[in-house]
Amino acid sequence: MTDDSPPHGADAQTAWPVALSGVTETVVTTLGPNERWNVAALGVHAPDGDGPATATTWGRTRTWRNFRESGGGYVQFTRDPVDFVEAALSVREEDEPILDSADAWVEIEVEQRDSGTEGDTQWVEWALHPVDSAAERRVVPTTNRGHAAVVEATVAASRLDVPSYDRETLLERLAYFESVVETAGSERERAAFQRVRKLVDAEW
Amino acid sequence: MTDDSPPHGADAQTAWPVALSGVTETVVTTLGPNERWNVAALGVHAPDGDGPATATTWGRTRTWRNFRESGGGYVQFTRDPVDFVEAALSVREEDEPILDSADAWVEIEVEQRDSGTEGDTQWVEWALHPVDSAAERRVVPTTNRGHAAVVEATVAASRLDVPSYDRETLLERLAYFESVVETAGSERERAAFQRVRKLVDAEW
Repeated sequence: MTDDSPPHGADAQTAWPVALSGVTETVVTTLGPNERWNVAALGVHAPDGDGPATATTWGRTRTWRNFRESGGGYVQFTRDPVDFVEAALSVREEDEPILDSADAWVEIEVEQRDSGTEGDTQWVEWALHPVDSAAERRVVPTTNRGHAAVVEATVAASRLDVPSYDRETLLERLAYFESVVETAGSERERAAFQRVRKLVDAEW
Repeated sequence: MTDDSPPHGADAQTAWPVALSGVTETVVTTLGPNERWNVAALGVHAPDGDGPATATTWGRTRTWRNFRESGGGYVQFTRDPVDFVEAALSVREEDEPILDSADAWVEIEVEQRDSGTEGDTQWVEWALHPVDSAAERRVVPTTNRGHAAVVEATVAASRLDVPSYDRETLLERLAYFESVVETAGSERERAAFQRVRKLVDAEW
């Protein structure tokens, strides 16, 4: 951040090094009380009109705690399915905030915008104000069904213990997404799905 | 293509403007007997070792016919979900081979490598030899579950009339992917899913 950067929020959208639309699945690192960076998944909602991008934390997660206590973090855009699985399903901590696989990162300050409860879960909606960012790599994007299936598998897996979801349906989806990885994924997606299998306590 | 470009196959991999891994979902245009470019979906399999990239056509499709009769086409990498849906599920013809939404394109020559039948369907595996290419746009790639759900919906939809797939399972998947588009997609993914609804003769 340079001295002449705009005050946060004033010119927030220009600082995102990607075109946000709908919900963009990202990895966020937040500084914990142990001075290490917690790595988690975060769905970033595109700005609505002139507003800021937002994200919602569900429950008393490390990201929620660190957003509250440190006021921000680093949102990162990675294509690596193994990093995504570990962010979504495991507790991972690093000494440095930026992952090697990040094609771009955005340092954000967060501000609580809303909160509520759904079932037994307390949620908080955060406004994300970019304060610094960098694009490390720009490439021609490609579509791989195996990569998408890894992402969907993390969603299904994270719902297995939520009572409002039907467990059998989620397990069928996990089996389907595993078959997509076998058909269309590369070695990296296969490695990612093996991490899903290791991190999820269920059989499908 | 310049005069000093390598003979096809000799240096084929270097001409792809993307990193191919696993199966990459692309759009291909092929010149038909009416001198118009047919737009279709094509899954490009990454080279196995030193071999060429490959793709398989299933049945007597326009792409199969035009590959046989014209010997090639243009493989394109697009992020636009509407273009992808139309390529996958409709008959679309254009006067020019390159779509506006293509972030990159590769002119290919094709060569039949293998063929066979599965059920009543004849398949042909083609080697894809790049002869020219260009990257129009390089960006930081992002992950949107809605985009992936549109792609998965085209796969499910194209299997509805294949006897070896269970129709109820496919319809449940279409309903799920539509819900993902509603949750995580942008306006463009919603428009794409409306095209799916219009092009697919089924209720879910």
